[in-house]
Amino acid sequence: MSDKLWGGRFTAKAAEWVDEFGASIHFDQKMASEDLEGSIAHAKMLGKQGIISNEESKEIVNGLTALYEELEAGKIVFDVKNEDIHMNMESLLTEKIGPVAGKLHTARSRNDQVATDFHLWVKHRLPHVLEVLTELQAELLVLADEHADTVMSGYTHLQHAQPITYGHYLLAYFEMFQRDYERFEFNQKHASISPLGAAALAGTTFPIDREFVADELGFDAIYHNSLDAVSDRDFALEFLSNASILMMHLSRMAEELILWSTYEFNYIELSDDFSTGSSIMPQKKNADFAELVRGKTGRTYGSLMSLLTTMKSLPLAYNKDMQEDKEQVFDIMDTVLASVKVFTGMLNGLTVHKERMLATTQDDFSNATELADYLATKGVPFREAHAIVGQLVLIGIQSKTPLQKMNLSDLQAAAPQIEEDIYDKLASETAVNRRTSIGGTAVENVKKEILRNQKILEARG
Amino acid sequence: MSDKLWGGRFTAKAAEWVDEFGASIHFDQKMASEDLEGSIAHAKMLGKQGIISNEESKEIVNGLTALYEELEAGKIVFDVKNEDIHMNMESLLTEKIGPVAGKLHTARSRNDQVATDFHLWVKHRLPHVLEVLTELQAELLVLADEHADTVMSGYTHLQHAQPITYGHYLLAYFEMFQRDYERFEFNQKHASISPLGAAALAGTTFPIDREFVADELGFDAIYHNSLDAVSDRDFALEFLSNASILMMHLSRMAEELILWSTYEFNYIELSDDFSTGSSIMPQKKNADFAELVRGKTGRTYGSLMSLLTTMKSLPLAYNKDMQEDKEQVFDIMDTVLASVKVFTGMLNGLTVHKERMLATTQDDFSNATELADYLATKGVPFREAHAIVGQLVLIGIQSKTPLQKMNLSDLQAAAPQIEEDIYDKLASETAVNRRTSIGGTAVENVKKEILRNQKILEARG
Amino acid sequence: MSDKLWGGRFTAKAAEWVDEFGASIHFDQKMASEDLEGSIAHAKMLGKQGIISNEESKEIVNGLTALYEELEAGKIVFDVKNEDIHMNMESLLTEKIGPVAGKLHTARSRNDQVATDFHLWVKHRLPHVLEVLTELQAELLVLADEHADTVMSGYTHLQHAQPITYGHYLLAYFEMFQRDYERFEFNQKHASISPLGAAALAGTTFPIDREFVADELGFDAIYHNSLDAVSDRDFALEFLSNASILMMHLSRMAEELILWSTYEFNYIELSDDFSTGSSIMPQKKNADFAELVRGKTGRTYGSLMSLLTTMKSLPLAYNKDMQEDKEQVFDIMDTVLASVKVFTGMLNGLTVHKERMLATTQDDFSNATELADYLATKGVPFREAHAIVGQLVLIGIQSKTPLQKMNLSDLQAAAPQIEEDIYDKLASETAVNRRTSIGGTAVENVKKEILRNQKILEARG
Amino acid sequence: MSDKLWGGRFTAKAAEWVDEFGASIHFDQKMASEDLEGSIAHAKMLGKQGIISNEESKEIVNGLTALYEELEAGKIVFDVKNEDIHMNMESLLTEKIGPVAGKLHTARSRNDQVATDFHLWVKHRLPHVLEVLTELQAELLVLADEHADTVMSGYTHLQHAQPITYGHYLLAYFEMFQRDYERFEFNQKHASISPLGAAALAGTTFPIDREFVADELGFDAIYHNSLDAVSDRDFALEFLSNASILMMHLSRMAEELILWSTYEFNYIELSDDFSTGSSIMPQKKNADFAELVRGKTGRTYGSLMSLLTTMKSLPLAYNKDMQEDKEQVFDIMDTVLASVKVFTGMLNGLTVHKERMLATTQDDFSNATELADYLATKGVPFREAHAIVGQLVLIGIQSKTPLQKMNLSDLQAAAPQIEEDIYDKLASETAVNRRTSIGGTAVENVKKEILRNQKILEARG
Repeated sequence: MSDKLWGGRFTAKAAEWVDEFGASIHFDQKMASEDLEGSIAHAKMLGKQGIISNEESKEIVNGLTALYEELEAGKIVFDVKNEDIHMNMESLLTEKIGPVAGKLHTARSRNDQVATDFHLWVKHRLPHVLEVLTELQAELLVLADEHADTVMSGYTHLQHAQPITYGHYLLAYFEMFQRDYERFEFNQKHASISPLGAAALAGTTFPIDREFVADELGFDAIYHNSLDAVSDRDFALEFLSNASILMMHLSRMAEELILWSTYEFNYIELSDDFSTGSSIMPQKKNADFAELVRGKTGRTYGSLMSLLTTMKSLPLAYNKDMQEDKEQVFDIMDTVLASVKVFTGMLNGLTVHKERMLATTQDDFSNATELADYLATKGVPFREAHAIVGQLVLIGIQSKTPLQKMNLSDLQAAAPQIEEDIYDKLASETAVNRRTSIGGTAVENVKKEILRNQKILEARG
Repeated sequence: MSDKLWGGRFTAKAAEWVDEFGASIHFDQKMASEDLEGSIAHAKMLGKQGIISNEESKEIVNGLTALYEELEAGKIVFDVKNEDIHMNMESLLTEKIGPVAGKLHTARSRNDQVATDFHLWVKHRLPHVLEVLTELQAELLVLADEHADTVMSGYTHLQHAQPITYGHYLLAYFEMFQRDYERFEFNQKHASISPLGAAALAGTTFPIDREFVADELGFDAIYHNSLDAVSDRDFALEFLSNASILMMHLSRMAEELILWSTYEFNYIELSDDFSTGSSIMPQKKNADFAELVRGKTGRTYGSLMSLLTTMKSLPLAYNKDMQEDKEQVFDIMDTVLASVKVFTGMLNGLTVHKERMLATTQDDFSNATELADYLATKGVPFREAHAIVGQLVLIGIQSKTPLQKMNLSDLQAAAPQIEEDIYDKLASETAVNRRTSIGGTAVENVKKEILRNQKILEARG
Repeated sequence: MSDKLWGGRFTAKAAEWVDEFGASIHFDQKMASEDLEGSIAHAKMLGKQGIISNEESKEIVNGLTALYEELEAGKIVFDVKNEDIHMNMESLLTEKIGPVAGKLHTARSRNDQVATDFHLWVKHRLPHVLEVLTELQAELLVLADEHADTVMSGYTHLQHAQPITYGHYLLAYFEMFQRDYERFEFNQKHASISPLGAAALAGTTFPIDREFVADELGFDAIYHNSLDAVSDRDFALEFLSNASILMMHLSRMAEELILWSTYEFNYIELSDDFSTGSSIMPQKKNADFAELVRGKTGRTYGSLMSLLTTMKSLPLAYNKDMQEDKEQVFDIMDTVLASVKVFTGMLNGLTVHKERMLATTQDDFSNATELADYLATKGVPFREAHAIVGQLVLIGIQSKTPLQKMNLSDLQAAAPQIEEDIYDKLASETAVNRRTSIGGTAVENVKKEILRNQKILEARG
Repeated sequence: MSDKLWGGRFTAKAAEWVDEFGASIHFDQKMASEDLEGSIAHAKMLGKQGIISNEESKEIVNGLTALYEELEAGKIVFDVKNEDIHMNMESLLTEKIGPVAGKLHTARSRNDQVATDFHLWVKHRLPHVLEVLTELQAELLVLADEHADTVMSGYTHLQHAQPITYGHYLLAYFEMFQRDYERFEFNQKHASISPLGAAALAGTTFPIDREFVADELGFDAIYHNSLDAVSDRDFALEFLSNASILMMHLSRMAEELILWSTYEFNYIELSDDFSTGSSIMPQKKNADFAELVRGKTGRTYGSLMSLLTTMKSLPLAYNKDMQEDKEQVFDIMDTVLASVKVFTGMLNGLTVHKERMLATTQDDFSNATELADYLATKGVPFREAHAIVGQLVLIGIQSKTPLQKMNLSDLQAAAPQIEEDIYDKLASETAVNRRTSIGGTAVENVKKEILRNQKILEARG
């Protein structure tokens, strides 16, 4: 007979490496405290419902509480022979309180137990994600406020398009992280459903009280179908999907931090805390952390793809394939928390080269739209205005003369509607400040948006 | 000079195949009606705000309305020379109403225009997704009601675990699609934000009214940052992610439909409408449609991965890479709508072999848990009960005797606590009906859940 | 009775939209000529082996040949009622030559037929991939030759690291495409195996000659197991995987083309053929084609993931899921061929700003390694040398003095081993030309490598 | 000043968690022995070339050799302060032999060093992959030989299609693993190229001998471009892609092992070593290991997608993003080796229920093709024959009479060409044994193929 707890009908012992291949204790021990919490709530309920005696219930709860303390104190050692966190804990409990420990598993199964642990694990950590996102958003507002009027080139296709302010640019990321925040908030809904009581797959014949257990554990709801309870991993997929979109956002900002730190752009300088040097080239100051986060976007997408693939075509209810869910989620939770914090740190220590930013908007034809808009307000159909300006830009590029340095007579030769007031319109600051449509880059807009966004953060309490 | 509308400063013509490589008209023409709607709203607003005259505004709106009718009538032919849907429409409008058409593009850019079209396209179709999901859920309830007491094997690891009812099984999918429904509902929030007025990237100097336009188009909100407005594709990623999770659910049910249609399982038979034959083996009745949907799970995951990858590391704001967003979303919208409808059809025409389902629960030891639970209620610690039952099952398998056919004395030899009443407990129907914990498979539970779920569907109106 | 060819035992007609969902003719018509080729070879073999009469064989071959000509002339219209390309062709053949057409399907099944068509389709196009790769590699050598001594900054972490030549940089891509070439060559091995004769899954009872058919079709080998023959899609996955790696390489070069075309870098200018303008900003010259190829990397990864997911867990042999294989491969073949050609075109029309490239190497401390190496040759342990140089760079950055402009005495204060000859060592050209280790950037090396690579291309014939 | 080795110009210390985020020592220590090997070869070369003195070279080599022994003995402790394996080793070497250790880094950089370590790591392990694949293939041949004449249902669409033998089925997987073998063999080509000597990115000014180093380390070739040498990860992507295809193959067989172990199929029984029980249902014997491997297919696809995404759009040469390459490859190497071994073990301990397999072919109409082929050989056009058989099957299904049990007169009523000899043709064994086309399922074929395949394995030596 096998020495596995479930080995009653088995007649041979598996080779050790096979056991290790099948075991999950090397990673599911991360859910040790959630496993204990779930067991404590379950044991209380068993007592309350008279499924076990009150005394048994207390004995078990005390034993589990003692284990919890040992866990916190780092005194617990797990054993791969006991496969997973549940078996390990049961074995430790048995050592501690004797055979009564065996009653804890009444009216539950490892299937609803692992689902409960995993839900709890995610549910406990989503608030941290929201917290680090809030910190990052707050940092963006501080920086945006400081740079509400820092003029820089706005880019499309990485070409100078129109002048914007750096503050305005930062607020674009605020909006992205706001949507990320909302997604992780929504994620909590499907994470906060209690599977406990679904037992193996079909519910149990014992008169349990699922709602009591759910309350004890802080869940907002319970699963209404036992098969679904043990085979649902939507909340994990939602997390990985939300994480992927968030990391995509970070990868975009990372790309810009790296780009803007180059010799050529020279818009910003990262603090030493968030840069590294080279073993062979001492002059280097590399945006390593931005690069690493950008690289970890791949890791996150991969984990999403991994779990989606694993879940594909699995018949109900629990299948061992699903053991693959946890490592991906554990790893990406770490990745997300650290990556967001790194960004807050990087932004906090950023040196911004305002003069350089402004300078690049002054000889680059990024005011061409101003001229086209000017002509349009003088009644020239926009497409015609566009063609006229295109010709002037071509001349300007060939003669290395920005529009604002061309003679009025030359401008009028192209379009007689042009008058002296055009020169003011062509200044970067003017271009920025005339864009007062909602969401536009004008300094007053940026300031208004910062206030609006501060209120959003404050409302989070 | 190039004959492209934006070709003012360009001096050479591109080879035709290069143009075709860059063009999007072969797929973005699917947004033709959205493009016209967006333009109509924009033209009205330009008139209202006095940016163009009321007369010009009317002329443009009339021209666009005429184009809309021609589009509906299938009379519009697009030209790859005009690259994309926006240029095509502008060119058609110019043909129709002359140079005043050129004024339509005042205070907007293709960047905010394409973003608007794409948001509208998704926003218009999400309700269809909700609708087909509701139909599928309703079909599940009908079938579950019919089979609330149809006993079958419940599986874990594809092994018989405990008896359940087919109705209970169907309700598990109801729950999955319920979460899918909630996700697509949430998706609508980020799809329903108007980008129009962000112009190229920085807002516009014209005194536009973004909220008026948003109202006209039925948007719930407007983007508060112009850079974000033209570079956000979160709503598309949310859609692809939601679609991936939904297709995963369908793939699980597809797997079971295929499996259960086999010679070996023989639980169900698909209707002829949703099966196909073989060109060489006339006896075959293949679950082709279930297989095809299962296969299309791959397509959906691929599209999600595709757009996530495309968006990775893109600096703000618009980049041409983003043109790759639409084909993926268009294709997956078709895939999702058709796949869900196929499932509703398959379930609707399903023949269920109830006797076969029941029969498989009667000689398979899936009542082992009943015995273990029975012992537990008699005070045997669960783990010990488990081991006793394990030994009995082993004997049963070797002697081909199900538990319910073993002599009482043989049972008592293993555990003296066993009494005559065990035989009733071991019947599948009893096993099912004693699982009355919330979410358990008992017939009364299933009926209760059907009622609860019907109310959910009714509340959708 | 259904009017489908395989409809013998079916009693109901499917709704039209369901048929369309299941049909593949809208995409598998791309294999029309391969389908005819396969059928011609099969018909010849049936006659040769006496399975049908020689006369029948000739009649069928003539009919198929006529269809082939009509196909080439664009005269064939397909019908969705006939589901797929095989049924369409059989129906067209029956129209043309009457019931004898029915004998063509002797000793084969749609399963081996579609596998044959698909293998042929890929096998016919891999040489084109090799061809466009060779053209791109040749273009790289022409450009590398022209710029063997064009000094520019070499980057790591997008920071100036050490001077290199642009020719050297281009050769790095030559090497990547060389590996791509080798992978697609290897791909041909598994594409060039004939499945025909495997029939539905088990082989056939007819005395066929599979090797004759394989020879006729130009296959290099035949499948040795009939189940494998109809269910293998490895060659398609190899193609998608190779395409993904190739597109990754192109995305890296695309990133650099985009970056180097910016106002800030200004290293290169793309020709008008491979740029586009903006509808609102006439000064823009966007690297649209590089961006589009970069974006299509996502599409390619997505297709790989799609087919991998579809194939996961499919039991042998053919399953309808596998119908999803073709659209992905067809689309990515187009993507790869066009993307590579676009790159050849972009490189061919490139304007390189040599002076700007050189200039960025002259005040950037990218010669720091030269100084460290200099000290190491004077016996200073490398790590110590590194620290000394690090201090000098720090001083240089603070005082805006490049190393080559520092006084000898100041240098000697940091390290007494430094002598007058250091100034020559610190020049970019010297730094480049002293890197003569194999694969290093020295001009003589670059020229040697160009010759070696030209021979590789010549050997392809 | 920072205490990092490269910290010469840095003025602030990073917070500890930031350092840990950037560090790689927690995973790249797996390459510790490769790092030492690479350093030993480099140190020997430096001495041989006179770049350092022979004495220094020996001192360093001795120090490294001592570290190697300590590593083997498990005596080395790494420190996260030293970031990565290279810095850790250098620090340990310095402790051991003093400042001369600093000379080891002459003429190399961490960029070519890490590339070398990683190439070596993969290169050392690919032969193990080939080895475990060979073992699995050998096991398949043993089992196929035992079951060359074990008749079972062949499936398409998971429906009974035509009888095959289990031996034939197993050989289909032999072929898949054969292609896997060929892919991993090809993989070795691009793994076995030495980057050492590329230095940071541009080569080195020292008179190194790259070919000597490559020889010492067993590389087959050297990189011919230094930029490519430090930024190429193709060999890792090839590995992950090959692993993905292999895992896809395993997932297909896993699916069948799970399916065939069900109560309903009951074709096989897995040994206790490769099954597990349930904590609540003692009768369960779950194919956990097959499920786990099937689940790990997701992990593998995810890692491929991860690295592809990470590498997308990275400008040359090294970027920190690339640090993400190793964990994916390390993990998937473990996954692949263990998964293949698990399969060999599962097949080795398999119990096959031959009678059950045969029985399912005897009342299932899977001999319909026999009848159609029979009619075709009597001159009935195949499509007509197909329709006739379709009608007979329909009658048979309705009357529960298999074809071989129908009266001759009834058969003749459908097709007068049918004669007495049809009954022999309709037996499963006959159906199998008449499929003698190459690759067909006839027993003699299967035996021939086993011999052919044994020679393939023997040739590997």
